[in-house]
Amino acid sequence: MITKNIIKLVQSLKQQKFRKEHGLFVVEGRKMVEELRSSSFDIVHLFATERYLEEHPLIDDRLETVTELQMSQMSGQDTPPGILAVVKTPKLEVPASFDGIVLALDGIANPGNLGTIIRTAEWFGIKQIICSEDCVELWNPKVIQATMGSVFRMSIAYTDLGTFLNESKRRGKAIYGALLEGENLFKKEGKWADGVIVIGSESHGIRDNITPMITHPITIPRASGSLTESLNASMAAGIILAVFAMKK
Amino acid sequence: MITKNIIKLVQSLKQQKFRKEHGLFVVEGRKMVEELRSSSFDIVHLFATERYLEEHPLIDDRLETVTELQMSQMSGQDTPPGILAVVKTPKLEVPASFDGIVLALDGIANPGNLGTIIRTAEWFGIKQIICSEDCVELWNPKVIQATMGSVFRMSIAYTDLGTFLNESKRRGKAIYGALLEGENLFKKEGKWADGVIVIGSESHGIRDNITPMITHPITIPRASGSLTESLNASMAAGIILAVFAMKK
Repeated sequence: MITKNIIKLVQSLKQQKFRKEHGLFVVEGRKMVEELRSSSFDIVHLFATERYLEEHPLIDDRLETVTELQMSQMSGQDTPPGILAVVKTPKLEVPASFDGIVLALDGIANPGNLGTIIRTAEWFGIKQIICSEDCVELWNPKVIQATMGSVFRMSIAYTDLGTFLNESKRRGKAIYGALLEGENLFKKEGKWADGVIVIGSESHGIRDNITPMITHPITIPRASGSLTESLNASMAAGIILAVFAMKK
Repeated sequence: MITKNIIKLVQSLKQQKFRKEHGLFVVEGRKMVEELRSSSFDIVHLFATERYLEEHPLIDDRLETVTELQMSQMSGQDTPPGILAVVKTPKLEVPASFDGIVLALDGIANPGNLGTIIRTAEWFGIKQIICSEDCVELWNPKVIQATMGSVFRMSIAYTDLGTFLNESKRRGKAIYGALLEGENLFKKEGKWADGVIVIGSESHGIRDNITPMITHPITIPRASGSLTESLNASMAAGIILAVFAMKK
């Protein structure tokens, strides 16, 4: 049976500090919990309200029924979806080597952007994402939500981006980066070499310590006469991934 | 000088009901107000704090200095950026005819998505966006913010989407729509004919009353083995616009 202490624990997981301390995070909503249950992630608690279970019957040994009040105390959403899981954060490891295209994120700070990038990357067949250490935390509920479940299937690691890029370069990988003065992404002939696509942050783009490591600067061409200064970071990532997938 | 009644008025504009009643909306932040001031939009009030003006001097006849407290009462943001404008909502009109590519949105409900779509559409040279009547309201502060200023330069109208599409079809325009079973967007040869690109909503995609009007179903191909069910609505719009711009 659920105790006050467990409710307090789940409430505490709204804060990054306690997610880190307990090595746990929260997943909410029918679709997300379904994706979670088909993944290899370790579910510590699975709570649902009776009202939820009447509409969406569920057989799972881990299931514990809670009242609407208990659920609303634990939920991070204004309208609690009625199902909530507490999950162990897996250890994130930088791969020793990689093939194909890896996505590297330089300081992505907006949780919705990180989640959308993970979702879109999975759509286009990316297997590995490397985040700079100051990217927003992966277990932030807004990140999890925006991935629509892709977070449970994507290999993601946080590391010093400069070191990772230098090591990749040393192994002969191309380092692509969206810069203002680069090759026109749309005019590229032939295929793309294996390598890393670096996406800059919302406010600073690719940072000065990373820029010199870019071996292949690319530019998403803007329509002539357009006065937009930039694209949203996740949008830029998605468009680059689409064009890479197109010319693979 | 700013009065309590004006502060109350600005506060009320956080709600759609009062934006509609007064025909006014709010724009906040340095970059957004700069874009606004270079637009043809009608600024009714322009407020800034002294602290803001020390950092970012501004010469504008409409400028009124307010205290930090007054600004925080009016601002819709957790950390008020220190500059806020109250702006007349212009009349939005459906164009009698159009050339090139028009974007049509079928029930986009998320403000961030609508804003991002407007921003990305401007990047790729789209001049006109048609929203179904149940799309999120354009003057919602989260929409405005996500456009990064493109809202001040894009022609946007809300109308019955079915009527608009039927009329466009009657005039010989192609009606493109992202559907599960469509032409592979990446494999298309040659150029795209003038027409309308329809983007479906976050939860329902293109709705059943609109689907029969699509003359050119298109599909963003997913990597084999990917388990993602869909792309985010604004991401799908951006990728389609990118590929259209590529083969223009």
